[in-house]
Amino acid sequence: MKILLVGAKGTIGRAVQHALSRHQILSAGRDSGELHADMTQPDSIRALFERTGKVDAIICAAGLLHLGPLTEMSPEQFRIGLDNKLMGQANLALIGQHFLNAGGSITLTSGMGNEIPIRHGSNACAVNAAIEGFVRGAAVELTAGLRINAVCPNVLQESWEPLQSYFPGFEPVPAARVALAYQRSVEGVETGQVFKVW
Amino acid sequence: MKILLVGAKGTIGRAVQHALSRHQILSAGRDSGELHADMTQPDSIRALFERTGKVDAIICAAGLLHLGPLTEMSPEQFRIGLDNKLMGQANLALIGQHFLNAGGSITLTSGMGNEIPIRHGSNACAVNAAIEGFVRGAAVELTAGLRINAVCPNVLQESWEPLQSYFPGFEPVPAARVALAYQRSVEGVETGQVFKVW
Repeated sequence: MKILLVGAKGTIGRAVQHALSRHQILSAGRDSGELHADMTQPDSIRALFERTGKVDAIICAAGLLHLGPLTEMSPEQFRIGLDNKLMGQANLALIGQHFLNAGGSITLTSGMGNEIPIRHGSNACAVNAAIEGFVRGAAVELTAGLRINAVCPNVLQESWEPLQSYFPGFEPVPAARVALAYQRSVEGVETGQVFKVW
Repeated sequence: MKILLVGAKGTIGRAVQHALSRHQILSAGRDSGELHADMTQPDSIRALFERTGKVDAIICAAGLLHLGPLTEMSPEQFRIGLDNKLMGQANLALIGQHFLNAGGSITLTSGMGNEIPIRHGSNACAVNAAIEGFVRGAAVELTAGLRINAVCPNVLQESWEPLQSYFPGFEPVPAARVALAYQRSVEGVETGQVFKVW
């Protein structure tokens, strides 16, 4: 398969690249990877797909959120997650659907916070829930056997040190385990699913 | 109680006004109601609360979404729901939390599409899920006994005629039943909840 991986240089991206190494991976990122693209800009995404041509799978493991106390959160800070992790992934899916071969798949990344609120996580809760809602809504409309799923990773072992205060009593998961969920989405047959890795 | 009701002239807003008529209702809307405000603009929301002063409850029954087929949906169309129904309600909550009396509540409106996808509803699914995620995330951080909930109404009997093709086999609900959920949120004790009215 020819797979476009956005966020290839992140902790999850690198693990996904390893898990799917028997495929042809086109790595993309804002400032890194073979292909540079800013997923918040539709024109940048269109230019990216004009370079890749048709692919068999699109994976996004990128996106910024705002973590901070609700009582001090400004609308501008709340917008960070909306414009970046949510709209960026929606841009990739909406534009990318037209650059998928029949039977191809889109795999987005949500994360902690939808069902289980975390401290300072109201922006994350909204954005991650939106990604999961979008996947459920989009899956019933894709044609030509196209599929779409999300991976919802728990906090990573690799990010445990700076983030542990948000996750008291949580069991962090290794990125290598999270990468299996992307493999399941890409190589499997399911659609409209959220693969939780806890 | 002194209650700010945004979207007071809509079908749900009018029913909520009736259900909560024993309270002092300040009705607001973009072009209607006693107070005019554009909830997509933080400055407009700030000006609104400077006029109302402190309130005991904030209710939002307003917000635009984009309904349309996924295969033709542009990023710009997807943005409609993000900028309007999602960011508008987030603006109200983020700014409004500082204008609530102790024990006050915020009640937002989500809607069909989070758990149950509907035709042409991928934007609605994302936005409505985000509102419910936000409510869960925000509830654990509010202080001074402040509460936040969402009401998730099924399609309304009053809107059945134009919308029925999206909802085959669904049982529409009267706006008067939906209004009870807002009453439950405002006068009750629950927080972080999604009140489904089906």
